[in-house]
Amino acid sequence: MKFATLPGARTDGRLVLVSRDLKRAVDASPMAATLIDALERWDDIAPKLKARYDDLNAGRIAEAFAFDPQACLAPLPRSPQWCDGSAFLNHGRLMERAFNTPPIPDFHTIPVMYQGASDDFLGATQDVPLPSEADGIDFEGEFGVVVGRVPMGVRPTQALECIRLIVQINDWSLRGFGPREMKTGFGFLQAKPSTSFAPVAVTPDELGTDWHDGRVQLRLHVEWNGQWFGHPSGSEMSFSFGDLVAHAARTRRLSAGTIIGSGTVSNASRTAGSACIAERRVIEIVDEGQAKTVFMRFGDRVRMVARDAQGAAPFGAIDQRVVPGGISNANEGQS
Amino acid sequence: MKFATLPGARTDGRLVLVSRDLKRAVDASPMAATLIDALERWDDIAPKLKARYDDLNAGRIAEAFAFDPQACLAPLPRSPQWCDGSAFLNHGRLMERAFNTPPIPDFHTIPVMYQGASDDFLGATQDVPLPSEADGIDFEGEFGVVVGRVPMGVRPTQALECIRLIVQINDWSLRGFGPREMKTGFGFLQAKPSTSFAPVAVTPDELGTDWHDGRVQLRLHVEWNGQWFGHPSGSEMSFSFGDLVAHAARTRRLSAGTIIGSGTVSNASRTAGSACIAERRVIEIVDEGQAKTVFMRFGDRVRMVARDAQGAAPFGAIDQRVVPGGISNANEGQS
Repeated sequence: MKFATLPGARTDGRLVLVSRDLKRAVDASPMAATLIDALERWDDIAPKLKARYDDLNAGRIAEAFAFDPQACLAPLPRSPQWCDGSAFLNHGRLMERAFNTPPIPDFHTIPVMYQGASDDFLGATQDVPLPSEADGIDFEGEFGVVVGRVPMGVRPTQALECIRLIVQINDWSLRGFGPREMKTGFGFLQAKPSTSFAPVAVTPDELGTDWHDGRVQLRLHVEWNGQWFGHPSGSEMSFSFGDLVAHAARTRRLSAGTIIGSGTVSNASRTAGSACIAERRVIEIVDEGQAKTVFMRFGDRVRMVARDAQGAAPFGAIDQRVVPGGISNANEGQS
Repeated sequence: MKFATLPGARTDGRLVLVSRDLKRAVDASPMAATLIDALERWDDIAPKLKARYDDLNAGRIAEAFAFDPQACLAPLPRSPQWCDGSAFLNHGRLMERAFNTPPIPDFHTIPVMYQGASDDFLGATQDVPLPSEADGIDFEGEFGVVVGRVPMGVRPTQALECIRLIVQINDWSLRGFGPREMKTGFGFLQAKPSTSFAPVAVTPDELGTDWHDGRVQLRLHVEWNGQWFGHPSGSEMSFSFGDLVAHAARTRRLSAGTIIGSGTVSNASRTAGSACIAERRVIEIVDEGQAKTVFMRFGDRVRMVARDAQGAAPFGAIDQRVVPGGISNANEGQS
């Protein structure tokens, strides 16, 4: 199944089913008003949603309407919890050089993961308000999973069975805050403004063999202001999503709707490019002696689309612009 | 006003108003079904809630019932966001010695803060299920504030005006995970199981002059298995709650219902004792050459009550027991 969320009376929006080709949609509210509602009652409700999804794809629903990805909120406009791993060790190794941080202990055997804010996600084409260009504005292309209820102490193989949906993520980062926040040991907070999501969340079966070994085996195509930036594949993830979910649930249960991210998609081959600017900058330092690429400016756009071998984009596209935001920018606008 | 949450049909429970003396309560659902609902519509709804609260205190509500703190969930059983500072620098300095971590940059001028999980809080007398006694089970007595909507870039003085409620917190910690997670730079995750809350959340005016300078000027009395452990005062907080809220909102807006914590309450005087075991242990190392106190065992209880000069406890009491939890303990129970 494919799901999207349109604006509605509730903060959590209004759930729609989207056809496999992303052309048509239909209200899912007879079964579930919101995606979080569906996730909380998944076992009861999924068969009914599936029947409606099959009808939608077969053209049997008269009230279906044209799907407009630009109208979408994030599939979950807020979620109970958002934990983001750094499961591509190729990226992690490069970032250690970029931030000049000490080697992370047990880097190859225990995933690193930070707790992110989950109260205010952005939709795929919503503007991204940020306080200052001086903060090192960067995108991070990722994949993620949305789980049902997960018990404390779940094993990775069991954790895989808790995965309900797969999503595509832009985990916005402000690099000016990152190194200091890492040095406190308390993790990222100011370095992580609202995270953004591609419009369509899909059940794992929608990806066919591209969902394999607990990894999304798709290339993530990233363009910055219309220029190619990278197309790394999710296949090189060093930990599986089962490993990441089990890590998050080691000492606590996870509520239905918890989102677990992969961290920036990254491949060993230089020809794959990168899914964030910071990684490109450190590659420039390694290969050419100094960083040349500068971080984003207000008005810049980033586009991210995961595509399969046939060119289909199961999650739709993230296509966002960064704009001045916050109280200080509001004051500047008035003066 | 004083609020508590009883179990209800919703995950967010059922909101009640609690009398000033914590003896009586009345359903608040004619105005707001849940506390998060009240916080999201605060400006409209607070005057109506206040009128009902006044009637409750005056004995004018026939349907009022005896308030039972043991029946309570956390005032917010889940919240949009939970960010916990470490605003008592006396504690922070001691913990640097305990964890043998490098000095935090800008320690005296920029608050440190971690993003915690907010999907699954525990009530004041609910058992605390944890996977293993070997993880270094510890309590942390804290104060916290619950805010309304906070704009990105808010100043500390404006941030104070966004504070709707004050709460008392036990931020459970597993010390065995802390040092490694701090070294990753990604912050606490497995080190922080579900956080617990005293049964009653209060508006700042309820504390009178004990809410002053953006600080809760009350002693937090902590007992472990019935033995005195400490009674540090919130007055020595090195950053105000205004500072902490502004820090959390530096690069993003905060949703109504976001909770911001003080970190472990800690005083410079040794006679005040401590509000967590890890701090007592490092004091033992400093004063006596080695740590003598061991962390909690299953079956242990901790009780925390903030009291004013007259002995009143505006938040009620946290009184919890740690018990084996999670899949591995479930399996052990079967074998």
